[in-house]
Amino acid sequence: MEFSASQLSLILGGAIEGNPNVSVHKLSKIEEGVPGSLTFLANPVYTHYIYTTAASIVIVNQDFVPTQSVAATMIRVASAANAFAKLLEMYNEIKLKKTGISPLAYISPKASVGTNIYAGEFAVISDGAKIGNNVKIYPQVFIGENVTIGDNTTLFAGVKVYSDCQIGKDCILHSGTVIGSDGFRFAPENEEGQRKVPQIGNVLIEDDVEIGANCAIDRATLGSTILRKGVKFDNLIHIAHNVEIGESSYLAACNVVAGSTKIGKNCMFSGQVGIVGHLSIADNTIITAQSGISKNITKPGEVYMGSPAFEANKYRKAYIHFRNLDTMAKRIEQLEKKLNALTEQEAK
Amino acid sequence: MEFSASQLSLILGGAIEGNPNVSVHKLSKIEEGVPGSLTFLANPVYTHYIYTTAASIVIVNQDFVPTQSVAATMIRVASAANAFAKLLEMYNEIKLKKTGISPLAYISPKASVGTNIYAGEFAVISDGAKIGNNVKIYPQVFIGENVTIGDNTTLFAGVKVYSDCQIGKDCILHSGTVIGSDGFRFAPENEEGQRKVPQIGNVLIEDDVEIGANCAIDRATLGSTILRKGVKFDNLIHIAHNVEIGESSYLAACNVVAGSTKIGKNCMFSGQVGIVGHLSIADNTIITAQSGISKNITKPGEVYMGSPAFEANKYRKAYIHFRNLDTMAKRIEQLEKKLNALTEQEAK
Amino acid sequence: MEFSASQLSLILGGAIEGNPNVSVHKLSKIEEGVPGSLTFLANPVYTHYIYTTAASIVIVNQDFVPTQSVAATMIRVASAANAFAKLLEMYNEIKLKKTGISPLAYISPKASVGTNIYAGEFAVISDGAKIGNNVKIYPQVFIGENVTIGDNTTLFAGVKVYSDCQIGKDCILHSGTVIGSDGFRFAPENEEGQRKVPQIGNVLIEDDVEIGANCAIDRATLGSTILRKGVKFDNLIHIAHNVEIGESSYLAACNVVAGSTKIGKNCMFSGQVGIVGHLSIADNTIITAQSGISKNITKPGEVYMGSPAFEANKYRKAYIHFRNLDTMAKRIEQLEKKLNALTEQEAK
Repeated sequence: MEFSASQLSLILGGAIEGNPNVSVHKLSKIEEGVPGSLTFLANPVYTHYIYTTAASIVIVNQDFVPTQSVAATMIRVASAANAFAKLLEMYNEIKLKKTGISPLAYISPKASVGTNIYAGEFAVISDGAKIGNNVKIYPQVFIGENVTIGDNTTLFAGVKVYSDCQIGKDCILHSGTVIGSDGFRFAPENEEGQRKVPQIGNVLIEDDVEIGANCAIDRATLGSTILRKGVKFDNLIHIAHNVEIGESSYLAACNVVAGSTKIGKNCMFSGQVGIVGHLSIADNTIITAQSGISKNITKPGEVYMGSPAFEANKYRKAYIHFRNLDTMAKRIEQLEKKLNALTEQEAK
Repeated sequence: MEFSASQLSLILGGAIEGNPNVSVHKLSKIEEGVPGSLTFLANPVYTHYIYTTAASIVIVNQDFVPTQSVAATMIRVASAANAFAKLLEMYNEIKLKKTGISPLAYISPKASVGTNIYAGEFAVISDGAKIGNNVKIYPQVFIGENVTIGDNTTLFAGVKVYSDCQIGKDCILHSGTVIGSDGFRFAPENEEGQRKVPQIGNVLIEDDVEIGANCAIDRATLGSTILRKGVKFDNLIHIAHNVEIGESSYLAACNVVAGSTKIGKNCMFSGQVGIVGHLSIADNTIITAQSGISKNITKPGEVYMGSPAFEANKYRKAYIHFRNLDTMAKRIEQLEKKLNALTEQEAK
Repeated sequence: MEFSASQLSLILGGAIEGNPNVSVHKLSKIEEGVPGSLTFLANPVYTHYIYTTAASIVIVNQDFVPTQSVAATMIRVASAANAFAKLLEMYNEIKLKKTGISPLAYISPKASVGTNIYAGEFAVISDGAKIGNNVKIYPQVFIGENVTIGDNTTLFAGVKVYSDCQIGKDCILHSGTVIGSDGFRFAPENEEGQRKVPQIGNVLIEDDVEIGANCAIDRATLGSTILRKGVKFDNLIHIAHNVEIGESSYLAACNVVAGSTKIGKNCMFSGQVGIVGHLSIADNTIITAQSGISKNITKPGEVYMGSPAFEANKYRKAYIHFRNLDTMAKRIEQLEKKLNALTEQEAK
């Protein structure tokens, strides 16, 4: 694939500044630009690279004002980040275009599959599964009995989906992720100790959800563990049974959400956050890395920090004092000495 | 499957209150009850739902005293939670009843398998493996050389068991879990830096152990990494080489136990707990979420919190002060000012 | 395999003390020694076992001075730990020697494979992949399009490598590990909320890298996520897109490194450490368990602790005061009372 600046400006609806005939055949970062590569400038931190990059074309924001001369051809667009993202998408779409059912896949005669699907080697589609159109099932994926998967969804190599789970349209599940394993629940029993509580619910994943690699989303005891439309998960996330994650919430790597907790919409949790069970977290909640939430959050849009967490600005203030506790202790000692001296003096 | 209240009361050994002829064909939560569904009430928090639920039958504790009229038929039993769990189990047993060896599974001619096993598509059972009776091996499971697996154990899709590991009877291993990967150990060497210490031990899992999805249990350097009878693991847990987890201990998601640590019996660790290597943890120890244990715990039955952890009640007290450190700092400042004023006054 | 003490002393270049004709056929820990087993003593903590062990041969450090009589034959070497490691390696090499391509593996006719490789059942090697010599690909491994794998590298059962990733020579990847999943990045878009930023870079793993079980290493947005020569990872580690881990750095279990962070050489991070994105961490940095790094570390060789982390010795000091905050609060209260009393007295 080779594109000229004028072709790209048409695709992106942008304005060319420089040579419209220069052409590119690869994508690069601005600091790693080489002749023939296309790059972009969105983050002002990288502005200085535009004056030295060897890239042939740089996509920039409409309002970018160079303070030196720029050798590369520039294409001005409303949002350089979005424009570049669109090109990446086009590139990715072509690269990830896969279709056809491998003769080495196993598709149960009792399963139904849509048109134009891809099923790779050693994938398993079990009895009663319903696979939509344009679904991509990479090698070694396991799809259990009665699972439904919506149109255009991609399951990368080795994803495992237990029976009865439902996955929506336009979802992406990365390798190693497990959907529908048993929730962790044991009821006390008089004689033989704990007894496993069977988990007969499922996992319900709505449309446009992306889940990173090696996550584990447990099925509900009864009913459904739910990931709402537009939820995005990074890698290695644990979601316990009967949890619900609200629309368009983003969870970074290694989050842990314990059983029956309900997370609101548009939340953003940083890495290694833990949330205890049976809580309700308001919409737009932000949680900083490694924090632990132990109570309901009812006010939307607040930022939490710490383990157990409280308001982040208060946490940061307290933490500054924590760092200086040694000084604080010395000041108290000093005060005690002085006061004792004064008291003794007084006593005389 | 449809059951009447009188049939269920026979199965559960309970007493009917209401219409004995009403029948149910599905299981539901009390708050999601519909006509034809069977539910239960155990947690008092949910009591109010019993007066409004549309479920046809509710299993309740013997001593439950309604304060309003209940439309559903009630079945009184010693423990509603246990009774419902038994029904779930029956349901699950029927649902998960799988048997037969897929022609697409690979079973080494040098392996031995018991009677009535299930082996799904693309499962691998290697040379020298010994598989007990009624074992369920889901698709894409890997069982390495000389592995032994006891009767009635289930390995869900994609479990990987390295060579020489031993798994007991009545165990459940969830998808993506890895048993017997190498421990993380490197010995310093003069010239070429660190050198891997080969891990030639195994993992020994006793009977009635359940391990969640995507866990990683390393083999011992020499000897065995051991999970004792009745141990229960949630998802994404890391167990390092030569660790021993005592009988009936419960570890929640994302726990990390470093090398050679010995955990006692009946311990309960919340999510994201970390335990450093070469420690000994007493029986019945409870650890709160995200805590880090850095020292031996010798007294059984205590609760620990914090990172590094200490007694939870002391931690909670200290943490309240931590939250108020800003106020404390201001009080100290105030004291200093007052004392200085007083000292100056005194000096006059 | 049976070896006499004199044979072993030749292999190890050591000096025999005791019966040179005694022979061994297995390896054991010193505290679990039995007649016919070979063990070693390196850690002084275990010294007392040498006087009671039933092992037939014990490898010891050159300078070991027994304080009682030792029944076992000793072999003195420069480093007992290294010598034993060498024997373990020999043992492991023999045990893990696997070769041959299973007729049940799928190797694309468009892939190229070196000599003497092992490819197990249901492994997939995709179009354009280049596999070096002596590579071991265990069952159910997935190798995506255009992946390259250097000589002598081992991928244990179920490893998944996405397209275009590059893995060096002499690497070991444990089961369930995912290489090259998409980075977690979404760009804001006016109308439809967030939009996935396609991840078209790759993962580049240099020589002599070992990665534990169930890790997830994301591909770069553009360019490469890089693990330099000699990097060692424990289990369940998350590495985000565009991260670089410097030569011979060691990360313990459940580490999380967020996007674009550069880690220096010879770093050592304990378990459950988290590092935020876009940071630069100096060489030889040591981070204690569960710490969270939120700022650049510029000075090499320091130790950090806490979340957010700061110098470990300062953290430990502050933490001692934290544990005693209740006492500190009482002292302040006491001071306030005394001072008030004094002020009142003064006022009279």
